[in-house]
Amino acid sequence: MKVPEILYQFFKKEDNFLLITHVNPEPDALGSSIALSLALEQLNKTTWVYNKDGVPDIYKFLPLNEKIRSFLPDNIENFNLILLDCNNLKRAGFEEESRYKKSVVIDHHETVNDFGDIKWIVPDASATGLLVFYLIKALNLKITPDIAINLYSAIAIDTGTFRYNNTNPEVMRASAELIESGVDPAYIANCLYNTWSKNRFSLLIMALNTFELRNDIAFTHVTKEMLEMTNTKKADTENFANFPRMIENVKVSVFLRQDEDNTWKVSLRSKDNVNVAHIASEFEGGGHKNAAGFFIKGDLKTVKDVIYKKILQKMS
Amino acid sequence: MKVPEILYQFFKKEDNFLLITHVNPEPDALGSSIALSLALEQLNKTTWVYNKDGVPDIYKFLPLNEKIRSFLPDNIENFNLILLDCNNLKRAGFEEESRYKKSVVIDHHETVNDFGDIKWIVPDASATGLLVFYLIKALNLKITPDIAINLYSAIAIDTGTFRYNNTNPEVMRASAELIESGVDPAYIANCLYNTWSKNRFSLLIMALNTFELRNDIAFTHVTKEMLEMTNTKKADTENFANFPRMIENVKVSVFLRQDEDNTWKVSLRSKDNVNVAHIASEFEGGGHKNAAGFFIKGDLKTVKDVIYKKILQKMS
Repeated sequence: MKVPEILYQFFKKEDNFLLITHVNPEPDALGSSIALSLALEQLNKTTWVYNKDGVPDIYKFLPLNEKIRSFLPDNIENFNLILLDCNNLKRAGFEEESRYKKSVVIDHHETVNDFGDIKWIVPDASATGLLVFYLIKALNLKITPDIAINLYSAIAIDTGTFRYNNTNPEVMRASAELIESGVDPAYIANCLYNTWSKNRFSLLIMALNTFELRNDIAFTHVTKEMLEMTNTKKADTENFANFPRMIENVKVSVFLRQDEDNTWKVSLRSKDNVNVAHIASEFEGGGHKNAAGFFIKGDLKTVKDVIYKKILQKMS
Repeated sequence: MKVPEILYQFFKKEDNFLLITHVNPEPDALGSSIALSLALEQLNKTTWVYNKDGVPDIYKFLPLNEKIRSFLPDNIENFNLILLDCNNLKRAGFEEESRYKKSVVIDHHETVNDFGDIKWIVPDASATGLLVFYLIKALNLKITPDIAINLYSAIAIDTGTFRYNNTNPEVMRASAELIESGVDPAYIANCLYNTWSKNRFSLLIMALNTFELRNDIAFTHVTKEMLEMTNTKKADTENFANFPRMIENVKVSVFLRQDEDNTWKVSLRSKDNVNVAHIASEFEGGGHKNAAGFFIKGDLKTVKDVIYKKILQKMS
């Protein structure tokens, strides 16, 4: 992967960087920001890493995650804005702000808009963490163990530890280098997949008991009552949507989480041939080809019927 | 990884090879045998690939798996025996047989005994498929797409797609090469993890509903009645033992499957620091450090108590 010269020269030339990423951050967003910040410090640059939502507890295994602040510096006008793992300010919950110097976008998402003085957007890249890996190498900086663990976690989450269709020789070789720089792959996999609370596991069992299959479309859900009964939080339903994908003939898995009495957050997961980003956009949501989401209002039964019909329509 | 010269010279010099592997085969056993057979055919060698149990339906995605026969050639005395992914004849269900010429062992299991005229046993190797990969390269043979898919599947299953503690830079780079030789990693992951029948998924939900946590030891089970109710087979419980490992404080996951009215097949799965092979050996079973199993007789409640006490004793 070739890093644009204008990009790494910008990092060499400028001094102050405000790194921001999308709301509701996951390890690709978090790890990319932390790693880039650590690398730029090797050049004695000043960085401020911002995420509106802060670091979810489950991702506090990322080294130096405490660098991420959920408040902004006073003197934003001195900072260059580096937008990571998203490509518009709204997604970062930052659309009110306009005082920064130049803006840079480093991202691998498809939905591209025209924001950014310098843009490095590579939809084919497996993870933003992979782009940051190449950027750090282009800057001739050291991949320290802390940087490596952050970047490996970014790649691991976005490839499903090398299970998704964005897995390729390049990301395998980059990961080999990151392991050599100090990553314990099994430790990261455990942090990502095997750190559930017992209550979260009980919630999963409850959710699976709601499993319903209509044609090749699977439905599961979690109500507010179920969260209360298991003493869990909304964030604990992360990844629940993936379980019914295990079934061979399931083309789309729909997971609904009750947000308010009459509002549901819907997560869609699909296998290769169904683009759920297109389905989500019908409900004013968004995402990737095989993972997308949106909010919808209504009672559970009606909402499921509406989604079911829309998916059938889009798949036909 | 250096392939012993005596090993690859043996394959160059000899002409007939009977490749056999362990009973109850999984993709490391199957993929290693098929791949080595395909490679040796490039040298115009005669191969016979044998597995006592044949290929389970769920692994029939492996290219040319129909090469595997569950019967032996008449003229065994003309063949050299190549034992793959195990290191004693009993594990291959082959202990009655002694007519073969020379014997070779290629394996990565720890429990080593003295069988084999030539032994290449590398407990540090992530998979037997990785050893076969290096052997094929040492023989200067071509990694065809069919060979690559078989070897990648072998590696993928044994590393849990790069999640287990046998994941290292070497296996990542070998996998990168295999992808370049024609593997679609997402397709393999789907074949391994996302080809469940709806009935199998229903059985999993039933099993999870039996979830019980005693200290850091998780118990789940499947009875014969549950198999009947969901119209599933014993083999459908493969991997069930892994689910409770998702819980952070679970050190050992115990999964019991009723085999006969009073007999249970027990699968143990653990995280890094608990060696379940040692626990299984107390019940005359065996396996790896983090995955082992055994059979036990008794009613469910008694059996669970006995296992629980033994694990507590071994962990203390």
